[in-house]
Amino acid sequence: MSVEYKRGLEDIIAATSSICTVDGAAGKLRYRGYDIDDLAQRSSFEEVTSLLWFGDLPKKADLDRFSRDLAGSRALPAPVLDAMQAYPRKVHPLEAIRTAASFHAMYDPDAHDNSADANLRKSVRLTAQMATCVAAWRRIREGKPIVAPDAGHSHAWNFLYMNSGQAPDALSEEAMNKVLVLHAEHELNASTFAARVAVATVSDLHSALVGALGALKGPRHGGANEDVLQMLQEIKTPERAEPYIKGKLAAFENMSRTERADPKNRIPGFGHRVYKVDDARAPHLRAIGRRLAERAGVLNVAETAEAVYRVMHTETKLPVNVDFFSAVIYHSLGIPIDLCTSIFAVSRMPGWCAHIMEQYADNRLIRPRAEYTGVGPRPFVPIEARG
Amino acid sequence: MSVEYKRGLEDIIAATSSICTVDGAAGKLRYRGYDIDDLAQRSSFEEVTSLLWFGDLPKKADLDRFSRDLAGSRALPAPVLDAMQAYPRKVHPLEAIRTAASFHAMYDPDAHDNSADANLRKSVRLTAQMATCVAAWRRIREGKPIVAPDAGHSHAWNFLYMNSGQAPDALSEEAMNKVLVLHAEHELNASTFAARVAVATVSDLHSALVGALGALKGPRHGGANEDVLQMLQEIKTPERAEPYIKGKLAAFENMSRTERADPKNRIPGFGHRVYKVDDARAPHLRAIGRRLAERAGVLNVAETAEAVYRVMHTETKLPVNVDFFSAVIYHSLGIPIDLCTSIFAVSRMPGWCAHIMEQYADNRLIRPRAEYTGVGPRPFVPIEARG
Repeated sequence: MSVEYKRGLEDIIAATSSICTVDGAAGKLRYRGYDIDDLAQRSSFEEVTSLLWFGDLPKKADLDRFSRDLAGSRALPAPVLDAMQAYPRKVHPLEAIRTAASFHAMYDPDAHDNSADANLRKSVRLTAQMATCVAAWRRIREGKPIVAPDAGHSHAWNFLYMNSGQAPDALSEEAMNKVLVLHAEHELNASTFAARVAVATVSDLHSALVGALGALKGPRHGGANEDVLQMLQEIKTPERAEPYIKGKLAAFENMSRTERADPKNRIPGFGHRVYKVDDARAPHLRAIGRRLAERAGVLNVAETAEAVYRVMHTETKLPVNVDFFSAVIYHSLGIPIDLCTSIFAVSRMPGWCAHIMEQYADNRLIRPRAEYTGVGPRPFVPIEARG
Repeated sequence: MSVEYKRGLEDIIAATSSICTVDGAAGKLRYRGYDIDDLAQRSSFEEVTSLLWFGDLPKKADLDRFSRDLAGSRALPAPVLDAMQAYPRKVHPLEAIRTAASFHAMYDPDAHDNSADANLRKSVRLTAQMATCVAAWRRIREGKPIVAPDAGHSHAWNFLYMNSGQAPDALSEEAMNKVLVLHAEHELNASTFAARVAVATVSDLHSALVGALGALKGPRHGGANEDVLQMLQEIKTPERAEPYIKGKLAAFENMSRTERADPKNRIPGFGHRVYKVDDARAPHLRAIGRRLAERAGVLNVAETAEAVYRVMHTETKLPVNVDFFSAVIYHSLGIPIDLCTSIFAVSRMPGWCAHIMEQYADNRLIRPRAEYTGVGPRPFVPIEARG
């Protein structure tokens, strides 16, 4: 073995990529060289998706065509919707989405075609339809009729529309678009890496997507924003933030390594493997989250979040991450807690697909080694001689 | 970044593990320190599963109890079987299995419990039921009634019984047991690694399993044994092996890097990231595969495999791998080509579960980095100014 073992592959380079840079020391994030601050303020989900897949900001005619392709691909195959109708209502939404995504392969005409053209067609379809799938599952489990997609609007607008059955206002659309843009891509995060590991066996795009969804579900990754919203609702008011946080931090100090590893014992929304300073995406979510909360009459949740942020800033060195303020937005938009990770999946589709296509374009099996820490070699002992 | 980039994480240590050693230079494989030769000749799937999960060869009373637990857990939840009845018949079996495994979480009472006890219960259930699932899907797509599991026999016997509806003879059971034992575990292969990446986000066992199935599907991993059987049927007779193989090897010589990366242009069943000499598992499969082929009246396929092996040995330095001779066994047992990878999944369940439980026991997020090879930083250009 040629290199020292780094737990969790920390700082180990697992791929070359021209998609994204995360500068953890400076808190900078760039998609294809463009600063996330510019993209958050001036771009749309459609434009960012085009950027991530094709490498540059699209010209107007190209963006229009691409947006029309995406919008025209929003309808899920009827058998997928029928199958979802039969799922038990109480499952975690990501379980429903993961199962529907796997089932979707059975109705995708390109499911077994791994050519670049087919992978692009599948990326368009699945990126468009992930939003439809998440909104449809929400409606199904709430016992409401599914709202068919409206191809005449943006991905952000249409997602909110399919959730509520009502046209969202401009501020909600703007907030949803920011969520989509800011979560679209983040280098070799665990779910994206899981997708690349699957592709590297020359498996298909649906298989890679299902692997990504499985990895996203964990509270150390996409699952964290559900835990943030849960915590904010538990704290309830800004005044209660300081004792709550200080209590959890003090308890953590006295815990074993195993207990500390349990996400339940940590403050969700803070700390990140790569960022050493506050996440570049957080300020954008924080600002629009506050406006949205105010307008929705739930300013309390935004102020509780601010109070938690201040206590964490004073008491720890942990930087805030993307999951923290996005929880305020989801709450203000009336999104149920356990749907948050599924919305993360809707947003991350462009990044997953970009990495899947990049991996296919210059592929090699991803197959690391383990360092053996067990016993042996030892001789086999017949069963009657085992003491 | 502290270390040099190795494509495909070759030789990079991604975990410590006490489960298994693969000595690629010597062609040696050990589960928990026990040589695979001993295990292939003297052990059973049940015993090896117990060994992989609990760390040592079980005493008789423990093995009996464990085998009873496994056998008593074979029945799939009825809604899973019902859902499978609705899948289109022509999908790739691994798509059906992957979707059913994801759906299974909705009916598993421990789905969201990641404790060690719950993970062991889920490992028992899912290992037992993966065999049921694969056999049931085969029966469903063939339009035959599903055969309920028989708890009175071994995992190998019962799997063959659920496939055909008839009691298998002793040689078939022995061969199936060897397939199960020899494929049970193989360190950080791509599917096992995918499972560990999912678990490392503190996602659940079903999510990890679904990720593993997605990675297994590729022809650079579990999908390879389907390609071997396809090739043997294409070659048809031993005399045709030499021109066929030499022709493919000569064509390969003149190919671009991209073409060479396409599994279709390679000889499946040869070459391995870790093994530099013949795979320790191959001789066991080769020997029983020949006996089985002879008995089944398909000696031709075994002899064609022998002829391919000889040509590859003379013409290349590529060692034979586990996928090559297992194809002869599957063919002799009347297994359809496209079911081979699903049988690999049945066999690999103990290894996947062992790694999942080991990862949970001392967990850290697996989150490597990418080396950026793209453009930028560059300023955002408004859409009307894009040239």
